[in-house]
Formats: sequence, structure tokens, C-alpha cells
Amino acid sequence: MKDKAKKYFTDEMNDRDRAIFECGITLGAIYHQFQGTPLTNDETTIHKLEEAIEATMSKQPWIENVKISIIPTDLKNGKKVYDYSELGRANFKADVIAAYGTVKVSGKIRYIEELDFPLMYIDDISAS
Amino acid sequence: MKDKAKKYFTDEMNDRDRAIFECGITLGAIYHQFQGTPLTNDETTIHKLEEAIEATMSKQPWIENVKISIIPTDLKNGKKVYDYSELGRANFKADVIAAYGTVKVSGKIRYIEELDFPLMYIDDISAS
Amino acid sequence: MKDKAKKYFTDEMNDRDRAIFECGITLGAIYHQFQGTPLTNDETTIHKLEEAIEATMSKQPWIENVKISIIPTDLKNGKKVYDYSELGRANFKADVIAAYGTVKVSGKIRYIEELDFPLMYIDDISAS
Amino acid sequence: MKDKAKKYFTDEMNDRDRAIFECGITLGAIYHQFQGTPLTNDETTIHKLEEAIEATMSKQPWIENVKISIIPTDLKNGKKVYDYSELGRANFKADVIAAYGTVKVSGKIRYIEELDFPLMYIDDISAS
Repeated sequence: MKDKAKKYFTDEMNDRDRAIFECGITLGAIYHQFQGTPLTNDETTIHKLEEAIEATMSKQPWIENVKISIIPTDLKNGKKVYDYSELGRANFKADVIAAYGTVKVSGKIRYIEELDFPLMYIDDISAS
Repeated sequence: MKDKAKKYFTDEMNDRDRAIFECGITLGAIYHQFQGTPLTNDETTIHKLEEAIEATMSKQPWIENVKISIIPTDLKNGKKVYDYSELGRANFKADVIAAYGTVKVSGKIRYIEELDFPLMYIDDISAS
Repeated sequence: MKDKAKKYFTDEMNDRDRAIFECGITLGAIYHQFQGTPLTNDETTIHKLEEAIEATMSKQPWIENVKISIIPTDLKNGKKVYDYSELGRANFKADVIAAYGTVKVSGKIRYIEELDFPLMYIDDISAS
Repeated sequence: MKDKAKKYFTDEMNDRDRAIFECGITLGAIYHQFQGTPLTNDETTIHKLEEAIEATMSKQPWIENVKISIIPTDLKNGKKVYDYSELGRANFKADVIAAYGTVKVSGKIRYIEELDFPLMYIDDISAS
């Protein structure tokens, strides 16, 4: 697919650079768009939110796939009025594939206990 | 249902006041949580986002029902890489029912052309 | 001030109803707009975020005043790369005054330990 | 600075890859965290919001500098109750410097009229 935005980037940008960049954008976007969404450990609601994040965030440029699996561990059960949670730093589990030109990049969000941090990282870069 | 939070409110607060207040909170929350979500006029994606907003936002306190019908009028078609939109002020169509004690309140978000504004308003208050 | 939106509301809506409704909207909006903002316990940054929330959210209809005092208790110190937090449910302390016609309403967000919940409530309603 | 998260990335990741990735994350985060914030063309409010975005988003990992200059062109003047806007796709002007190891990357958000799109791109990559 022709990239009408390519001319705005520095000429030094190669396919690998670009796939990595777009993967980063979408991981940052997912996290900051949906954090704070009210949530309980109810499986139906969790599944609907996962599907909506996947469908909407895969519209982002050069994103081939988005897979979301919300971690329900600490989510409240919603049985009483105030017993619900919000999608927070420990609940995000995202897998994003960005593809640009000949390069595919696999990026993830995982809460890492050792860092007490929802780390965004790249676990695979492949060229065709 | 007993309300463990009632004591934090002023004693002047009656059921009507409270249902109106909770309805307002959830309308404001819907609008500011989901604005900016990437979107095209693709019906499947729109439907998934509607379902996710309904399921998550109905967890809010004293909310009986949330119905979302995204207005696709100005949404791009997503056929080219950068041809997508975001959920914005003209796309929200929300119907929220809050119920507290003996009172039900129906609140809405509608984009009002005359005001060029995504108005949140109450169109019905009923007591049982 | 004349209210061009009044006609969209049910005729039953009085000044008290409306001030309560607008107060709820803005409390819900504050919470869901800014939750997830990266933050440390650095006082300068906290103060800048408080000021920005106050200035922007007081643009909301019929809002007379917004006062934000972020609770820094559990915020990390930012001394190492991953040691920062996000504005979360325990950090919001908001005071919002809505005024409509003859009625003023004071609304708050406070994290209530007993409920483990960032409660939005109204602590004063006054008519002039 | 030692990077405690390095081991989670693929071994193929070099300094350039990483600086590009972190720059992308923060651009995506800025856009999706703050879109929807109520705003008028009032300079004081705009400046406060710019300062808050700069201060908070520069907490992100490996971000050296964040500069925000909101474009006020289409923002309403706030003189009447409903005459305000929200921070939207045409208003973001962001400059982010990410630095990892020996590499610095300059990333931007600019609304590009030709694309009708708030493009995130990299205009400089430099190694020391």
C-alpha cells in the first residue's frame, strides 16, 4: 500500500523503524484511551470490552492485528453498588502486530510484577 | 438496596436529587472516557464499541440501563490507511436510565445542531 | 444568563434539578478525562495538572468553580525510569460548584476508604 | 542509566529501535489521554493545559523532552455557555524527544491538511 505520509518522516526512516514506531503509538494509545473504564470480573462485560478495543484500535495506521485479554485478577465482582473497578495498570494484556513494508513487529503490554509497571515492549521483529 | 454512601451526602438530598445526580455523572463519564476512540463507519466495529460502552458504563452506581447508538454520519470509511475518524462530539447518542429509591430519570446525550454542542439533558423524571 | 438548551429538558426540571445534574456531569467528566495521566509525587507537576484540570473543566456549562487537590500519598517518586504512577482512583480530590438560576450545588470527589471507592457526592445545596 | 526492562525485549532490539519505540508510545499516549479536554481559545487556559501535558508526559520512560503548543484556530471563545470546544485532532502540536543509549529521536504530532489527519511522525534520528 502506498504511504501518503512517508514524505513527512526523515529520509533515514526504514521499514523496521516505521513498524516499530507504529507499534509503539498503538500500544500507548490503547493504554491511555481505555484506562479508567468501569469494569467488574463479569466475563461477558470483559469480553465485550476486549472486542471493542481490538476492533477500534486495529484501525490505527499499519496495524495488522490487536489482541486484548484483560486480566481479571483484582477486579471486583459488582454484586454491591460500589463494588466495581476500573481498567487499570495491572489489567492490560495487549498484543499488537504492526506491519510496514517488509517488516513485522510484535509488541505487547504486560504488567510486570518486578517493575510494578505495565511494560510496553517488543518481543519479535521479522523481515519477509 | 441499602446505600452505604448516603451518609456522605447532605441530608437535603432526596431520591429525585440523587437519581438526577447519578444520571449526570454517567453521562459525563461516557463522553470523556470514550471520546477519541478510533472509528470508521464499519457497522461491526461501531456495534462492538456500542456494546462495550453499554456493558461497562452500566456498572456505574444506580444506573439501570445504558443504550448507545453511535451516529456514523461523518465517520470515514477506513478504506485507506489514514481514512479513519475518532468518536467525537457529533457521534454520541446515549440514553441512560438512573434509578434511586422511588425515582427514575432518563438522561440523554444528543448533538444539537442549533447549539453545535453535544448536549446532555434530562427528558423524563418519574416517581413510582 | 439565558439558557438556549432549556427547551430540550423536560418541563419538570427546576433550578435545583439542573444545578445537581450539571454538577454530576462535571464530576464524571473530570474523573474519566484525566484518570491515567502519568504522575509522580513531584509537587510542581502535581500543581500544573491541578491547574489545568481546574481551568479546562470550569468551561463546562453552569460550572462556577472547580478546585482540584491531588492526593499524592501513593504516588511514586519518579527517581528511576519506571517508578512513576498514574492519576488513579485514590488520588482525586475535587470540589465543584454548579450554579443554575437561584440554586448553587457543591459536589465533591473523595476516595472513601470504607467503600474503597472514589465517591462523587453533594454536600451542599443552597438557594438564594 | 541501567534499564531493568531490557530483558523483556527481543535481543534484536538496538538503541535506535528502542528510542523510536518509546517516542511512538508517548505520542500515542498524549493524543489519547488528553483528547476531549474542554477548551476555549483563552490563552491562559491553553497555556495551563500545555504545561500540564508537558510535565506529566515527560515522566514516560526514556522521554527527554515534551513540548506542546496547542493550535487554537478552531477553538470557540467561551463567551456563551455552550460555546466551548474540546481538544481535538486539529489542535495537537506536540514535539517529543526520546533518548535511549546513544540515540535520540525527535517525534511530532501535526495535523496535516492534505491527509486530514493528526499525523505522528519522526523527523530526526541522531546518534552520539
